[in-house]
Amino acid sequence: MKSYRKELWFEVPQRRALLNITAQVESCLRESGIREGLCLVNAMHITASVFINDDERGLHADYERWLEKLAPEKPHSAYDHNRTGEDNADAHLKRTVMGREIVVAVTAGALDFGPWEQIFYGEFDGRRRKRVLVKIIGE
Amino acid sequence: MKSYRKELWFEVPQRRALLNITAQVESCLRESGIREGLCLVNAMHITASVFINDDERGLHADYERWLEKLAPEKPHSAYDHNRTGEDNADAHLKRTVMGREIVVAVTAGALDFGPWEQIFYGEFDGRRRKRVLVKIIGE
Amino acid sequence: MKSYRKELWFEVPQRRALLNITAQVESCLRESGIREGLCLVNAMHITASVFINDDERGLHADYERWLEKLAPEKPHSAYDHNRTGEDNADAHLKRTVMGREIVVAVTAGALDFGPWEQIFYGEFDGRRRKRVLVKIIGE
Repeated sequence: MKSYRKELWFEVPQRRALLNITAQVESCLRESGIREGLCLVNAMHITASVFINDDERGLHADYERWLEKLAPEKPHSAYDHNRTGEDNADAHLKRTVMGREIVVAVTAGALDFGPWEQIFYGEFDGRRRKRVLVKIIGE
Repeated sequence: MKSYRKELWFEVPQRRALLNITAQVESCLRESGIREGLCLVNAMHITASVFINDDERGLHADYERWLEKLAPEKPHSAYDHNRTGEDNADAHLKRTVMGREIVVAVTAGALDFGPWEQIFYGEFDGRRRKRVLVKIIGE
Repeated sequence: MKSYRKELWFEVPQRRALLNITAQVESCLRESGIREGLCLVNAMHITASVFINDDERGLHADYERWLEKLAPEKPHSAYDHNRTGEDNADAHLKRTVMGREIVVAVTAGALDFGPWEQIFYGEFDGRRRKRVLVKIIGE
């Protein structure tokens, strides 16, 4: 069994953004030399997500509005967590909806994807350097 | 390390439905000959889910009502994504709540499940052929 | 390839609680002797979750309030599932939001975590003995 590990670093200038990281994960997979196995991609921070969906601008605007409805950022005082001096309680909840991680099959040296699957980094508390972990195991 | 891959195809005649696919995944596992490892089951489409919960009709009606409350299908014009000519923005959000994938332990040649765990395909934009991927690695 | 399996048992005296189980999972990993691979941790019950987030009391109070808003426990009669004699339909929905499972990378014999990642058992229908599965594969 082979295993491969890489950290991807991001610094999003806004508070929230969705970044397509598919090409970076594909590049990790090529570097790993693994042909058959599983590829885990997870946010290493608890106010960010890794998820799979569509690279369509309108949908991303819908996600932003929808997450603000389900877990509004403001008023910051609505959240007990923000009494610790943080203002990012909503980011913990938004990341919960979107998910921490994905596991993707690796088949014949490629990410084994359906027609529209793309990997996104979901940042919900940006403006600082944060990391995603790529771990691939297989042969 | 062994690896196994199979696509399961579905064509749901309605827009939305929950299908119990546990027996089909168990059949994949038998075919794989893998006794110890991990089994990934994921929707290959971004308007569908694979998730684990109870095979109880009342609960499935609750899911339908609850998802319609969290991410209503209509009005279609409420979503930017639908300006592309689609009408399925809600399906992308519903699938986000329900999840893209599950990873199940394989122990002694069986899916290592608690007493009520059943695997479902969650279709949120049906009436066409769509796929689920089963990937099993182990020994 | 090595594989390791362990069940962790919990009996939460309240209906709902979030328990930090990171140390127990780390102890499993040490016992497994696995240095590189993947660690799956999943609830074996469909009214409970395993998820990763912050061990901060205020945030946990926010989760409780937020989940009660998204999927209120009462009135029990609001849910078809509860016509079966159950009163825990809300727990199935809360667990759906929080997730069934996590997959964590194992690197150099440790859980490969970012700075604040902690593993939680989320109980949404307690007052009875329930289980979490830890399955680790690798070398």
